[in-house]
Order: sequence, then structure tokens, then C-alpha cells
Amino acid sequence: MAVKLNEKYLAGFVSEEEIRKVEKETAEAVQTIKNRNGAGNDFLGWIDLPVNYDKAEFEAIKKAAEKIKKSCDVFVVIGIGGSYLGARAAIEYIKSPLYNALAKDTPDIYFAGNTLSGTALDELLSICDGKDVCVNVISKSGTTTEPAIAFRVMREYLENKYGKDGARERIFATTDKEKGSLKYLADQNGYQCFVVPDDVGGRYSVLTAVGLLPIAVAGCDIDKLMKGAADAREAYNGKTGTDCERYAAIRNCLYRKGKAIEILACYHPFFTMTAEWWKQLYGESEGKDGKGIFPASVIFSTDLHSMGQMIQEGKRNIFETVVDIKSTGAKVAVPGDSENLDGLGFIAGQTLDSVNRKAFQATALAHCDGGVPNIVIEVDGKNEYEFGYLVYFFEMACAISGYTLGVNPFNQPGVESYKKNMYALLGKPGAENEERRKQLLARLGE
Amino acid sequence: MAVKLNEKYLAGFVSEEEIRKVEKETAEAVQTIKNRNGAGNDFLGWIDLPVNYDKAEFEAIKKAAEKIKKSCDVFVVIGIGGSYLGARAAIEYIKSPLYNALAKDTPDIYFAGNTLSGTALDELLSICDGKDVCVNVISKSGTTTEPAIAFRVMREYLENKYGKDGARERIFATTDKEKGSLKYLADQNGYQCFVVPDDVGGRYSVLTAVGLLPIAVAGCDIDKLMKGAADAREAYNGKTGTDCERYAAIRNCLYRKGKAIEILACYHPFFTMTAEWWKQLYGESEGKDGKGIFPASVIFSTDLHSMGQMIQEGKRNIFETVVDIKSTGAKVAVPGDSENLDGLGFIAGQTLDSVNRKAFQATALAHCDGGVPNIVIEVDGKNEYEFGYLVYFFEMACAISGYTLGVNPFNQPGVESYKKNMYALLGKPGAENEERRKQLLARLGE
Repeated sequence: MAVKLNEKYLAGFVSEEEIRKVEKETAEAVQTIKNRNGAGNDFLGWIDLPVNYDKAEFEAIKKAAEKIKKSCDVFVVIGIGGSYLGARAAIEYIKSPLYNALAKDTPDIYFAGNTLSGTALDELLSICDGKDVCVNVISKSGTTTEPAIAFRVMREYLENKYGKDGARERIFATTDKEKGSLKYLADQNGYQCFVVPDDVGGRYSVLTAVGLLPIAVAGCDIDKLMKGAADAREAYNGKTGTDCERYAAIRNCLYRKGKAIEILACYHPFFTMTAEWWKQLYGESEGKDGKGIFPASVIFSTDLHSMGQMIQEGKRNIFETVVDIKSTGAKVAVPGDSENLDGLGFIAGQTLDSVNRKAFQATALAHCDGGVPNIVIEVDGKNEYEFGYLVYFFEMACAISGYTLGVNPFNQPGVESYKKNMYALLGKPGAENEERRKQLLARLGE
Repeated sequence: MAVKLNEKYLAGFVSEEEIRKVEKETAEAVQTIKNRNGAGNDFLGWIDLPVNYDKAEFEAIKKAAEKIKKSCDVFVVIGIGGSYLGARAAIEYIKSPLYNALAKDTPDIYFAGNTLSGTALDELLSICDGKDVCVNVISKSGTTTEPAIAFRVMREYLENKYGKDGARERIFATTDKEKGSLKYLADQNGYQCFVVPDDVGGRYSVLTAVGLLPIAVAGCDIDKLMKGAADAREAYNGKTGTDCERYAAIRNCLYRKGKAIEILACYHPFFTMTAEWWKQLYGESEGKDGKGIFPASVIFSTDLHSMGQMIQEGKRNIFETVVDIKSTGAKVAVPGDSENLDGLGFIAGQTLDSVNRKAFQATALAHCDGGVPNIVIEVDGKNEYEFGYLVYFFEMACAISGYTLGVNPFNQPGVESYKKNMYALLGKPGAENEERRKQLLARLGE
């Protein structure tokens, strides 16, 4: 098992009896997922993805990645939400959060189309100057505002730089298999296409072409990634009494006892974007119908010097889930120093990672003493295999947890609200938009 | 006024009468700060810092920054908590979150000593390879574990590379003015020193040498930064009825009405680290005695596609504070496209920033409709002046808010808990450590 639950730091906060009660519900949820008869069951494609993926497309992804590696210095990935978080999380976890700054034989990778901030796109264009560029545009429909705008800008940039024929070889579209405006545009222009499956929601899409192409371009081994997920599927899918179900049970148990906030913590900066991916997965799956655990994240020991005080002694409405990565391969150790002015001589010669794991144990015990329960998820390492395993662990636990909470974990109706208002305020044609625009302007006093 | 409060999106959530009630308390807090007779009043040095700073040191900082710019490609800033968040926030806000990747005539800047993760330091060393390096080590005592370890590593690296004499010219220490192990080491080795004042806590230190040296090295105009803070001091210090006091009153009002989480939102990625700085400022100042608003942050519209669902329809225990930056100088606009397959023709020609501000209005209204009050803080621009102004706004509001909450906003007793356990588990010599070590190992079952 590459991923294991450690309940040592829950003692005194939640009893076995309390968990058992919730486990009756989580066991039902496991069954619901297995029988595919729950709410949102047309979005269960992620369950068998690690084994039932399109093998021909998988090979095409690898080939495209090789082509991209050879033909550019800068690879721009255009997508928002699930269309960028999974890939960015994987690349930072497996390679590095400093991936772009490190010496390597793969292109620099920038994520665009996830913001409407003008400076971000201005700066990206200046970075592209004088370099060879490829683009992967990821959008099921092709009409989501943020990526669509960025793609207009990057397509114009590539066509000005390489001509229409040159640009064609440098644009890769990940989109619907047959319909939608991006698919139409891609076919018309002859861009190579990859598929966003119909039965996999955005936040569950990292193991589809959405995530796999950028991850492969970064030089990660996507076979190992899928193997990790496949082994997790073998361990968790349709089974009760697993660590995965248990995580779902414990967090629901803590929520019912008034813990409204879950802080995902890890002691490595390379986990930062995995925590962001996790926030979408859990926040979007559970935050509805007036319910849901609020997902937050910290990187320790860094944030022990910012959020640490609040966690140790603030309002007791929180619990922590710590991802304890047991091995990273890092080499650096604390140097000796005969003068020992800083008083650290007693740890000279120890690797930083060994000091780091003591910091984790020390903190978990301190936070327990402060009234904050800690769920610990142990992960063996920081390679493709473990990342794939962890992704599936969190996905399955999220589905189980959502059903246990009593929501549909696979929809996101609330995401439309800002979009509708935005289209209206931007003056999108259409009677409904015009009516809404009038109402909104009146409320804004404009 | 470079910073203004906009209460348009609070209508219906909190009445003027309710705010007025809390304003009786915030007005008292303003007086307590002015009279310097509240808890933690030996840490009020930040109040007059924008005008009463050490002018000779300020000039020395500028000179050192010029020297550093000329003598290195990579500038490593070693510090944790307040000793890195302010500088990093300023550089990303004023310059860019992609500062290192952009073409420039100033060094790349990396922040170290804020984590015990081995990979982070391994990677930094590999980035330094073949480049000229300077180091700024920031620690009042010199014995805080994270920066002390990183400094051991970087000092060894510099001395191996440049010899003891060469390293001396490349190491800059920001530390206590006369005592502590780092001050002693620096004096012994002849490193240029800057001062961490006694009466300014870490999270309030961005306008001291702690923040100013790295900010100046990045090419920011620190005179303008101080001018912004000085004008904010003029506007807020000792005065009631200000927007600054009002922000403190409203957030306390919302907290008392059951809003346990404050989400700081901004529509620009360059604000990401300013939000992290804000989290330390508010979390560490208020999170004590079982109280405190839990500080979280998002970047929109990015995170509307991750946390948006939860904010729109989840548990109604949240409010948002949106930093609305009215002008960024960005130029990029939505390109025209005669085919208009993405349907965005109706915004062709508009700048992204104008679309972005509509997204803000659209979202604020949508979230209000979803039951989430929005405090809006309008900021004129993204230059040094506005950043300095905003820093002082948040610092003063935090002090007022902390007293209103009934805590000492200037201490952080809880931060010691993990450190004590960590020293014990790492086997630090001393009877107390040994006793604690035995107890902790028993609890860990080791």
C-alpha cells in the first residue's frame, strides 16, 4: 500500500464507536458507487479510468509529448479549474515547484487561461519572446471565458510568429470528442486533438488527456502514474473497511462534532499545488445545499510561522489532515560547525528530511494538545506511482464522503452564478442577459 | 486616499446600527493604541516606522542593494514567517509573481530557510550552480531552526565557492542590533548588518530592514513604499471614523454573527503572497484564547473554479474581503476573430483588466445572493506607494480588530509549542528536553 492512514493523533477526539456509526453510512456509499445508482452517476468514468483508458490515445499522448519536447522552449497550458490543477499538482509533486528554474531537457511550462488578470498574460507573452512555443488548450466546450480569451491571444501570437501552417503544428486541443466550438475550430484548422471524456468531471480529470499531456511533457512517466492509480483502484473500489473509506468516515464524524474547517497540511513545498487540487476536489464536491467542510491548506513548518498560532490556540472549529511523505530522496544534511553559535550542533549530520519528520511528529502532538485532531495520511514517496495512488485515494474518499454528507458529489451548480452575472454585465447578446444586466446595474447603482 | 472601503456588497447582511455598536469598541481600541496602554504595547514600533525610521540605515540598505545587484545573479533570502512573507509579498505585488522568469537587470531572488524540506534546499543549491550568489540571512536571534539550518548550508556553500573573504562580501545579516548568536557571528566574520528593531514583531516588520533590503534588491523604490505607509499613518493613526477602523468593526460584527471564516480574495495572481502575508498578520494576531476569525485566501476568477462552488452554496459560515485593484497598467486586450466560434466577439477589443473588473462585480453580487457578505477594499494601483499604503491599512486595522476581539494582537505564545516538542524529539541537550522527550516518545509508541 503506497498510502496508509495513521490514526495515532486522533486519540481522545473521536471514539471507535462514533466512527463505527458513520461507517454504516460510508459502507452504504461504497455500495452506491459500486452499483452506480447514486446522484450524479453519469460522472463515474473516473472509477475505472486507471484500467479502462483509451490505450491508443495514451500512446498518442506520449508521442505528442515527445514532439512538444523537441519543438519548443516554452509550453503554455491553457485551462481553468480541473483543466490545470491536476497537471500542475502532478508536475510540482513529481518534479518540483521550481520545475521551470531547474536545469532539464524538457520545456518550461506555464499555465494560462485560469485568470482574467491582464498583467499575467502580458508577462507570459514577454516570456515567450524569442523562444519557441507550443500550446495545449484544454476546454470541453471551448466557450469558457478565461481559457477562450487566453487561447484567442496565444493563437494570434503563434499565427503571427509561425504562420497558420506553423501554428497548426504547435497547437494541441484537449476537448470534447465530437461537439463544441473548440472541437470544430480544431478540426477546421487541423490541430491534433485529445479527448475530455463525457463521464469524467473536471475535478476528476487529471488521469485523462487533460492532465496526462502536460504531465508527460514535463518528463513524468505516465505509465507509472496510471499503475499507481490502478493499484489504488484495486485496493479501494467497491470495498469496505479500507483506509480510503475510513478517511471519509472520520472527516464526516469530525464535521458532525462541529469541526467546520479541514486544513490539509504537508511538510514539503512540492505539495502546495496538490493541496490546491484537493481543495477543488473536496470544496466543489461537498460545498452545496448549505453544507460542507471548508477546505484550507498549509505547508509546514513554513506556515507554523503564520497560521501556527491560530491552529494551536484559536477557535476550536478545525481539524488537520496531514500528508506525511515518508521518503523524498533529498540529500542535503545539516553541516557541522565547530563554533556552534546557533546551538544546532546536536543535529549536525542529520538530513533535513529526518529533521522535518521530527517536526511533523512534534507539531501533531502539540496541535493535539491544543485541541486539534490530526488525521494522518502516510505516503511512501514522491514519484509518479505514489502520486497516482494518492489521487485515486482522494477521489474515491471524496465520492464516499460526499454521499455520506448527503450531497451529489459530482455536480457544481453554483459555479454558474458568477458566469451568468458576468455575461450580463459584459453585455453578452440575448434577451435574458439584457434583462439581467438591467437588474444588476440597478443594484450596482450604475 | 489610495485605499478605500466599499460597503455596497454588505447590504442586508449587517445594519448600520450593528456596526455602530461595535464602533464604540473599535474607537476605544484606536485610543488604546494611541495611548500605548494596551496589552503588548512594547511592540508598537510599527506605528511610527513610516516616518521615524533610521534614515542612515535606510541609505545603507539602498547602497547594499546596489552592491548586491552588481555582484550576483541569484540572491537568497533566508528567513521564516514575517522574515520572508512581507518581502515576497511586496516583490510579487509590485514586480510580478513571475519576477524570476522575467527579463530584468536585477538578480533572481529565492526564499530559503522557511522549510525543513530537503528537496527545496537541494534544488536551490542546484540553481546556484555556476552562478554568482549573495545571501541575506534574517533572524533576530539566529537560533530559529529553519533559517539557522539554511544559513549553515548557504554559508558553507559560499565559503567553499568564494573563500572566507569572498563570502564575507556576499553575506548580509538582518538581526538584533547588539545581541544574539547571529549578531555575534556576523560581527566576528565582518558581515554587513541591518537591524530587526526590538519593538516591531515579525509580522509587522515588512517596512524595516527585514523587508526593505530584499524589496530594494528587486528594483522597487523603497522611498515610495515608505511614502505610501506614511500617508496611511497620517490618515489612520489615532483617528476614529476612518475606513481602517471601519474594516475592523465590520469584520468583528460579522464574526459575532457567526461568520467564522474570512476569505481574502483578489482578482490578480500578483496578490497571492500578499494574501499569505495577510494570513500571518491576522491569524497570528487574533488566533488565541479559543477565539479568532479563520483567515483563508483565494485568487479569482481562478479559484471560482475550485472554491467557488463552496462559497456560492456551502455552509454559510463565511464572509469575503475583496481587494479590488482598480488599475494595473496591463495592456493585453481580447483579440478580434471574424469566425467568433467561441462566441466572445461581444468583448473583442476590451482589455482583460476591464473584463476582470466586471467579473469581480458579477461575482460579488452572485455571492451576496448566495448569502456571503462581501467587504470590498479598493486600491488604486499596483505600485510601491499603494502597497505601502495597504500594508499600513491592514496593520492598523489588525491592531484595532485584535483589541476589539479582546486579545493581545502582538504576541504569539502558541508558536512555541511545536518548537519545544521538536527540540525534545531531536534530542537537544538539557534536562527539560530529555524529560519531555521521554514523554513524547511514550505517546508516539516509540
